[in-house]
Amino acid sequence: MQFPLRIAGIGAYLPATIVTTSELAERFGVDPGLIERITGIRERRYAGAETALTMATQAAQQALANANYALDSIDLIVVASAGMHQAIPCTAALLQNALQAPVGRSACFDLNATCMSFMLALQLLAPLINSGVYQRVLLVSSERASVSLNPHEWESTALFGDAAAAVVLERGDGSSSLQHSQFATWSNGSDLIQVRGGGTAQHPNAADTTPDMNWFMMQGPLAFRFVLREMQQFVERFLAELGWQNSEIDAVIPHQANRHAIEQVQARLGFQPDQVISNLATRGNCVSVSVPLALAEAVAAGRIQRGNRLVLLGSGAGITLGAVALIY
Amino acid sequence: MQFPLRIAGIGAYLPATIVTTSELAERFGVDPGLIERITGIRERRYAGAETALTMATQAAQQALANANYALDSIDLIVVASAGMHQAIPCTAALLQNALQAPVGRSACFDLNATCMSFMLALQLLAPLINSGVYQRVLLVSSERASVSLNPHEWESTALFGDAAAAVVLERGDGSSSLQHSQFATWSNGSDLIQVRGGGTAQHPNAADTTPDMNWFMMQGPLAFRFVLREMQQFVERFLAELGWQNSEIDAVIPHQANRHAIEQVQARLGFQPDQVISNLATRGNCVSVSVPLALAEAVAAGRIQRGNRLVLLGSGAGITLGAVALIY
Repeated sequence: MQFPLRIAGIGAYLPATIVTTSELAERFGVDPGLIERITGIRERRYAGAETALTMATQAAQQALANANYALDSIDLIVVASAGMHQAIPCTAALLQNALQAPVGRSACFDLNATCMSFMLALQLLAPLINSGVYQRVLLVSSERASVSLNPHEWESTALFGDAAAAVVLERGDGSSSLQHSQFATWSNGSDLIQVRGGGTAQHPNAADTTPDMNWFMMQGPLAFRFVLREMQQFVERFLAELGWQNSEIDAVIPHQANRHAIEQVQARLGFQPDQVISNLATRGNCVSVSVPLALAEAVAAGRIQRGNRLVLLGSGAGITLGAVALIY
Repeated sequence: MQFPLRIAGIGAYLPATIVTTSELAERFGVDPGLIERITGIRERRYAGAETALTMATQAAQQALANANYALDSIDLIVVASAGMHQAIPCTAALLQNALQAPVGRSACFDLNATCMSFMLALQLLAPLINSGVYQRVLLVSSERASVSLNPHEWESTALFGDAAAAVVLERGDGSSSLQHSQFATWSNGSDLIQVRGGGTAQHPNAADTTPDMNWFMMQGPLAFRFVLREMQQFVERFLAELGWQNSEIDAVIPHQANRHAIEQVQARLGFQPDQVISNLATRGNCVSVSVPLALAEAVAAGRIQRGNRLVLLGSGAGITLGAVALIY
């Protein structure tokens, strides 16, 4: 289903601290070449002084400046991330405060579909903006995954990085659009990627909550095979309904899950290597931020231009698969 | 803005364990009459064997049975709650699994605007359903607030109860509708109602995270005055845009924050006492579940009928105010 939707501005924030794969390899006593070969990641950023909220604030300010819009023109603030800053209130309300956006002007809520949060927010917001319920929306993803990594397991620790990205969305003039979107969840894989703590099931204060429950837990090879089994048919159906030929697509932005996931998307779906955008080697898997960060960096580099046909796609815990086609 | 929207089915789940105000008064060494006078709450439910996920499952099954729809007719599952079951994946994906809903059929995500989560979800989903992106949506709120209460403070502990409620939403035939909706956040009050832990800012495993950070913290009198200051003008603007006379409204369902909040809504906005629906005395403040639970109970009791004009309104942490008008 097609909706006019314009990304009026885009921004990103990267924490100052770079953590190289060599540093991690030394910490875990593993060959750095092995880690880089498996993950495809040379370095990633970790929040030091930054929090999910300060990163969100910086990315949002950059997106607003890029759009050349003032804070008082924003009537909805959405934070779409796997991780929240604190349990109550929602991060979007804290962001309104951190931005010093006018109170009583914008509504605020958080949305969570793990790695698919940003892409799913585009699907939800397009009809909302098109119908005029909200006119100008600040959509931000911010992830500080580094605090939840298992210090005893390099396989998952080496994958993730911290970052934030933001867009300002509006109805626009019709030349930019969300052309199609598709999401589905295969919850028979819901136990493959988990953080069991952090909610009411294993409350932080509960006597039977152990530190490992608050770490990110991934059955990596199983999750990878699970996604591969469903992804091809899922994306082929999406592309058939979208009606674009592969050769007409200016850029495919996959979720930066790991090297193999990106390579498989390219090869199995028949894209050319230069169609596929990746920042994995220097950013790692930034959870919900991966896709908007790659978009922001490609726009800043001139790789993506107005009028380009974009396909965003990927998978996340749930397991949820998603695809969104945009005319930028 | 008006959209066709039909609540095709509705359900609720209440935990088996009743906790009376007398029991709490004894635990805290306070006069039970005082607690009941201030809160308006005689008893509330606490989850015992139940979790947020099992309560959500029960409420969802009841809503589906009430609608007489099979699980394979649902193409989107949304959990709109302040508290999540676990950090990853989203509760909606876990619910798809618990319901044994067909995998790959429905998309799943969580939405969080604290106490306003359910009402805000109605606003977001109405244009999404109207435009046909999704046809039949299972919307569930489930709260297990009891695990986050401060055991040293009766003022907040006495307020909250656990429960779940669910609706099945569809476009319907046009006789049922979302007539108008309005939300806004005043984040200058974001520090008045908080759980500072439970996210990446104060990670459960961090050395400087103390148990009190994982408790619900409310500056009750300040939050109450804050909401009162903004609520009247907010709702009057909403009602003016809605165009209904007070006397034409069949039921006002306020968020069941506390006795004074409900009394003030009724008195200041000029509603008759019998227009205002309250289950506060026996349910307590069930966070995001309060409004859909009161709706479910009023429908079950025959107090709300098809074609009735309903106004849902309230406030939550953020501080976010919200109002939704429905023709049921």
